[in-house]
Amino acid sequence: MQVPYLEVLQVLEKIFQSKGFDPKRAALCAQLFTQASLDGVPSHGLDRVPVFLEMIRKKLVNPLSEAQRMESYGFFERWNGNLGAGPLNAHQSMERAILLAKEFGIGMVAIQNTNHWMRAGNYGWQAVAAGCIGICFTNTKPNMPPWGGKEPKLGNNPLVIAIPRSKGHVVLDMAMSQFSYGKLNTYLRAGKDMPFEAGFDQEGNLTKSPAEIIANELALPIGLWKGAGLSLVLDMLAAIISGGQATHQVGESGEEYGLSQIFLCLDPEKLGLEAWIDQKLDEIIQDFQRAETFNNQNVRYPGEYTLTIRDQNMREGVPVDEIVWSKIQSYIP
Amino acid sequence: MQVPYLEVLQVLEKIFQSKGFDPKRAALCAQLFTQASLDGVPSHGLDRVPVFLEMIRKKLVNPLSEAQRMESYGFFERWNGNLGAGPLNAHQSMERAILLAKEFGIGMVAIQNTNHWMRAGNYGWQAVAAGCIGICFTNTKPNMPPWGGKEPKLGNNPLVIAIPRSKGHVVLDMAMSQFSYGKLNTYLRAGKDMPFEAGFDQEGNLTKSPAEIIANELALPIGLWKGAGLSLVLDMLAAIISGGQATHQVGESGEEYGLSQIFLCLDPEKLGLEAWIDQKLDEIIQDFQRAETFNNQNVRYPGEYTLTIRDQNMREGVPVDEIVWSKIQSYIP
Repeated sequence: MQVPYLEVLQVLEKIFQSKGFDPKRAALCAQLFTQASLDGVPSHGLDRVPVFLEMIRKKLVNPLSEAQRMESYGFFERWNGNLGAGPLNAHQSMERAILLAKEFGIGMVAIQNTNHWMRAGNYGWQAVAAGCIGICFTNTKPNMPPWGGKEPKLGNNPLVIAIPRSKGHVVLDMAMSQFSYGKLNTYLRAGKDMPFEAGFDQEGNLTKSPAEIIANELALPIGLWKGAGLSLVLDMLAAIISGGQATHQVGESGEEYGLSQIFLCLDPEKLGLEAWIDQKLDEIIQDFQRAETFNNQNVRYPGEYTLTIRDQNMREGVPVDEIVWSKIQSYIP
Repeated sequence: MQVPYLEVLQVLEKIFQSKGFDPKRAALCAQLFTQASLDGVPSHGLDRVPVFLEMIRKKLVNPLSEAQRMESYGFFERWNGNLGAGPLNAHQSMERAILLAKEFGIGMVAIQNTNHWMRAGNYGWQAVAAGCIGICFTNTKPNMPPWGGKEPKLGNNPLVIAIPRSKGHVVLDMAMSQFSYGKLNTYLRAGKDMPFEAGFDQEGNLTKSPAEIIANELALPIGLWKGAGLSLVLDMLAAIISGGQATHQVGESGEEYGLSQIFLCLDPEKLGLEAWIDQKLDEIIQDFQRAETFNNQNVRYPGEYTLTIRDQNMREGVPVDEIVWSKIQSYIP
C-alpha cells in the first residue's frame, strides 16, 4: 500500500512524541524514517519503526538523550551520543561536519555511544544537499566471519560516499556484506536461493542457500578476504577516532547498541573545486553510461534512480507493507 | 633466487641514474621498487622495473620532472605530478600529507598528472612509520566493467588504509578487482581456473576461467555491483579533488599515464587518540584472532605477515624471478 507522505509523518510524530521526544526531535526522527521508505529503502525505513520502538521499550535507546560535544580540535569534534536515538545523533553529527567543512574546508565528527542510524544513505543525501562531499561509516554488531573464520567477528559496517552534482547527486551507500540479513530472509521466506554466492555453509564453502547462512551468521563479505579486511579497518577507525566501542564490544551484550560512527565532509568551494567539479562528474557519468551492456541493461551510478523514486512516491504515497503499517498504527497513543 | 637487499638497491640506483634521475631520487626510487619485493609483493616491485623503464623510453614517465605545488589551503594542497616517476610523486605526496597532519591534525594532498605508483601499500607503510593514520587511493586505466556492462569502464583503483600500532601496524592495500590481471595471467600460464569467480565470460556470466576474463578485460569488481560503485566514486573523488584526469580520460591514450591520486593523513596525537589507540587496536585484534576457523586456518589482519616476510627477506635476500633479474641487469649501463 502507499500512504501519503504527510500522513506518514504525522503518525510517526505522534508516536515518537508519546515516547518522550520533544516535538522538534519527533518531527526530525519521523522525517528520517519516512525518507528511507520514500527513497525506496523500506528495510531501513518504516519496516524498522517497530524495532526502534522496541529498543526504546528495552531502554537501549533513550528518547530524552541528546548528543554532547566532548572535545573540539578545530575541524574535528568528538561527541558522545549518550545512547540517544541513532538517526537523530547521526543527523546532528553530519550537520556539525557540514558546518565545520564550510568553515575549515574539511569537517570531521566522531561520535561514540550512539545507536543504529537506520538508513546510512540519509546522511550522504544530507551532505550533498548542503553542497558538500560527505563520507560516513558506522560499526555494527558482529555479523560476518573473518576470512577463514566460522563465526561472526566483523560488522557489516555500512559506508557512504556522497558527491554533490547539479544534474543529480552521486550517493554510494553500501554495507560490507554482499547481502543484508533482511535480503537473505526475504529469499528464505520465498523458498529461493540467492542470485549470487551470499555466505558460507557449515563446512566453510561458499553457498547461495539463505537458510545455511542465516543459521550460522556467516554472511559473505564483499570481495571475500578484501571486504573482510575493509570491514575490520573501518571498525578500527570508528572506534579509535570516536574513542567508543568496537564491533566485538558491541557484540558482547547480545543487543546492537552503543555504536561508533565517523562523519567527514569536504566543502568543494573552500577547496577550489568549483571551477570543474560539475563538468568532470558529468563527463565521468556520460562515459560510464555509454558502456555497452549485456542484454541491453542500463548501467546506473550510485544514487541515480533515487530521485526518480522519491518524486514518484511523493506523488503516489510512501510504499509500506500493510502488516508493517498496521503495526505502526497500533502504537498511536 | 634471492639477491641481497643492498645489491638490489645498488643495481637499481645505477640504472635509474643512467636514465636521468639525480642520485638522491634514483636512490629513493630504487628503495621503493625494492621495498615491494622485500615485503612479498614482487608483482608491484622488481617485476615492474622493466615496465617502468619502458615507460621512460616511451617518454610517458619523465625522470627529470618533479612534482610542483599548485595551490595550498592550509591542511590541503593540490600538486601537479608533471608526469614524473609515479613512486617518487606518491612518496612526496604522502610525505607532505604527513607534515600537514602533524601541523593541522589532518593533511590532504591531491596530485594530478602523475604516474603509476607501483605498490600502493608502500605509502601506507610510510604513513604509519611516521605515526599517522594514512589513507590513499589512485585511479587507473579502465580495466573492469560496470555492473551489467560488457566493456571496461572502471579502474581497479587501489585503496590503502593504514593504522599505526605499536605491536604491528595495520595496512590494508586492496584494488577494487577481485584478482589482478597479473594473478589472472599466472593462473592462465599454469592452465588453471581461478579459485573463486574472477570475472565475466562473453555472455556476461560469472566465470573462473582466466582466458575468457583477460580476452575481454572483464575482471570482477569485489562484491559485484558494490565494488563497481566504490570504484566509480573513488575515481570521481580522485579526479575532482586533484583537478586531474578521470579513468575514462586515462584510457583514451591506450597507455596508463597521467593519473590522479589522493593522500590523506590523520595525526593521532593531534586528535587526542593517544590515550587509547594502542589498547583499542590490540583488543580488536585479539578478539579477531580468537575466531574459530574452518580447517584450523589462521585469520590474519591486513599487514600482519608483512613484517615477518620483510625481516626474513632482509636476512636471506630479496626474492626475484631469475628472468626478471637478468632482464634488470641488462639495463645496467
